[in-house]
Amino acid sequence: MHAEVLAKCKQARQAALKLAACSTSLKNKALEQIATSLEKNKKDIIEANQLDRNRLESGDHYTEAFYDRLLLSEARIFEMAQGLREIAALNDPVGEVTGMWKRPNGLEIGQTRVPIGVIAIIYEARPNVTIDAAGLTLKTGNTVILRGSSEALNSNRALVKIIQQGLGEAGLPDGSVALIEDADRAAVMDLLNANQYLDLLIPRGGPSLINTVINNSSVPVIQTGAGNCHTYVDYSADLDKAVAIAVNAKVQRPGVCNAMETLLVHKDMADDFLPKIVPALEKLGVEIRGCPRTVSYSSNIKPAGEEDWSTEYLDLILAIRVVENIDQAVEHINSYGTGHSEAIITDSYNQARHFLASVDAAAVYVNASTRFTDGSAFGLGAEIGISTQKLHARGPMGLEALTTLKYIIFGSGQIRE
Amino acid sequence: MHAEVLAKCKQARQAALKLAACSTSLKNKALEQIATSLEKNKKDIIEANQLDRNRLESGDHYTEAFYDRLLLSEARIFEMAQGLREIAALNDPVGEVTGMWKRPNGLEIGQTRVPIGVIAIIYEARPNVTIDAAGLTLKTGNTVILRGSSEALNSNRALVKIIQQGLGEAGLPDGSVALIEDADRAAVMDLLNANQYLDLLIPRGGPSLINTVINNSSVPVIQTGAGNCHTYVDYSADLDKAVAIAVNAKVQRPGVCNAMETLLVHKDMADDFLPKIVPALEKLGVEIRGCPRTVSYSSNIKPAGEEDWSTEYLDLILAIRVVENIDQAVEHINSYGTGHSEAIITDSYNQARHFLASVDAAAVYVNASTRFTDGSAFGLGAEIGISTQKLHARGPMGLEALTTLKYIIFGSGQIRE
Repeated sequence: MHAEVLAKCKQARQAALKLAACSTSLKNKALEQIATSLEKNKKDIIEANQLDRNRLESGDHYTEAFYDRLLLSEARIFEMAQGLREIAALNDPVGEVTGMWKRPNGLEIGQTRVPIGVIAIIYEARPNVTIDAAGLTLKTGNTVILRGSSEALNSNRALVKIIQQGLGEAGLPDGSVALIEDADRAAVMDLLNANQYLDLLIPRGGPSLINTVINNSSVPVIQTGAGNCHTYVDYSADLDKAVAIAVNAKVQRPGVCNAMETLLVHKDMADDFLPKIVPALEKLGVEIRGCPRTVSYSSNIKPAGEEDWSTEYLDLILAIRVVENIDQAVEHINSYGTGHSEAIITDSYNQARHFLASVDAAAVYVNASTRFTDGSAFGLGAEIGISTQKLHARGPMGLEALTTLKYIIFGSGQIRE
Repeated sequence: MHAEVLAKCKQARQAALKLAACSTSLKNKALEQIATSLEKNKKDIIEANQLDRNRLESGDHYTEAFYDRLLLSEARIFEMAQGLREIAALNDPVGEVTGMWKRPNGLEIGQTRVPIGVIAIIYEARPNVTIDAAGLTLKTGNTVILRGSSEALNSNRALVKIIQQGLGEAGLPDGSVALIEDADRAAVMDLLNANQYLDLLIPRGGPSLINTVINNSSVPVIQTGAGNCHTYVDYSADLDKAVAIAVNAKVQRPGVCNAMETLLVHKDMADDFLPKIVPALEKLGVEIRGCPRTVSYSSNIKPAGEEDWSTEYLDLILAIRVVENIDQAVEHINSYGTGHSEAIITDSYNQARHFLASVDAAAVYVNASTRFTDGSAFGLGAEIGISTQKLHARGPMGLEALTTLKYIIFGSGQIRE
């Protein structure tokens, strides 16, 4: 194991035991101090970020989107500080007793929320994730090992320095937040197999990062982010609601994981709905790819291939398919979907219940835009990601998803017969 | 991928969507039918089991313990049937709405329990696991792919035949329970990487099986079973309770994961406690290995080495260490323990609270034997294993641990601004 990875893993493990016992007020104090310090040191942060941006501009990876993700402006630094203050204001789930019951032998058995322990987060060149992830893990009493892209190393180093100062001022343990600076990819592989030290690994980024982590990690992973989301307009839908919801789900922010990628339309609704939705979307710059029946509604619609049903465009592109009935819609979603967010538009009680029961996804909607799937819209506060796997956490992962339960058992001398 | 694995994975995926929608009464009917059928077909089962036992006896793997694990006697078949009836009698967690709340925009957001989907279970030559695992997964609406040891293939084949008949008679989908018969180890590797089809993988067996699965699986794994459990006798302990609990934790069933492996004794208690516990344990045939101070209490005590602190003996062997204080006990447990079950014996309110808060384990006891860590003693009913990892399920995994939550969102046309 790389020396830096090993040293930081050991330190994080030690710190985790101390941090787990820290009071909420101490953790909040650290969050507030880091927030203030971010604002005070904005010049240093922007200078460090400038180094990363210079390197990007002089290299051959440059794209506008990449630059935008990497950029830390004054406004963004203030947003990050504000984010930390919002995390400080959230309820601390650690210590909650979720239940307690008494057994016939008199044993009282309960469960209490505790931090998970040591969490590693591997992410791309988005330095705001550094603050975000550190804030959420700190609030829940977890220590965190951050491994951001080497393309954001100067920015991350500056941010982690501020975080560690804030921790120190609040009297929290060194090593509660650590940054792996080693640019070697082998250092990432070391992290993926540091079972002895890590309790959880969360990759945040595109499909290639996520797949690398899943295929190579022996540490438990939570998979986040992939969203091939559908909206199904049933024969029983209210036409105006259907148009408004479908437009919103596609165009309000097309680059995010809860945006709609395929629209499914019941065949009896097609004649009413498609002549309304197609021009509405085209007017907003959406390129449409359709099944043979959809194509007949506009000369601009390109035929959709098998690949379109599986693609998360993250762009102003939409696939449309006319289906025979709700079962075909459900089958399409369960075959091609990524288990993220799926919606039905209907005024039928039975169709709504059938869809809710049959669609296998983290979030299933009736008569609303899939764009609501996130921690703040669900009322959970800030989130560390949206889980598309089924273990531990499914859907938006707020503070609770960063805790685990410990059985506590109160006896008075009970032994097993 | 091996043809058999691929075909059964696909079938299980299809069946999972149907099984998830089946009513509790239908699932219970299948469980009852399988139970009756096990009893009726006991002769066939025993004959099939005889083939496996003959092969074991003529091979060079034979040990008494192995033979005993493999054996299906009439009594054991009746026990398995009874186990299924007990599972049928348990409350079905699927469909429970664990919470629902209303957002300012009128969206009602709730969470409901749903099956995980397709679960693969890899286990050793213990054919009773076949019935046990099929019963628990069926009750929770999950489909299961079983991969038992090839040394129990004839037994497993006979049992799965009966299960599948029971499923058919109850009208439940084919492929809800499948057995991988391919003896090739590469078939196991295929399962470990069948992410496209599997939602969860549970290895049940010894450390070597569990490590192979953890190190090679890209499917999410729940780790079960390793239990290096401690009992700490504080200076404030009631002496008689301490003796009774320590004896029970060690000898009541030494071969199981929640048995005590190391006893920690506060230095101020050593003179009172050790002269009582050491002869009591020795009389019951326990071999004791101790720290230098412990060794001075009996000429029979062998010195304990570093390795003893890390060993799960699963046998009538116990390591004893005298510690300076509770912090040293906690540090010992957090360093050498496997996060399974840990107990303190104390009459001090402060020591009890300190131990409960500082020990990082699935189950932390005050004044009771660690032997209670299992599904039935906790009141959860039958269990699929005892998780020693922190994600999804920690401690005894009952029916609830085989479910996941799905967000259900009821709207009336909400779109995101």
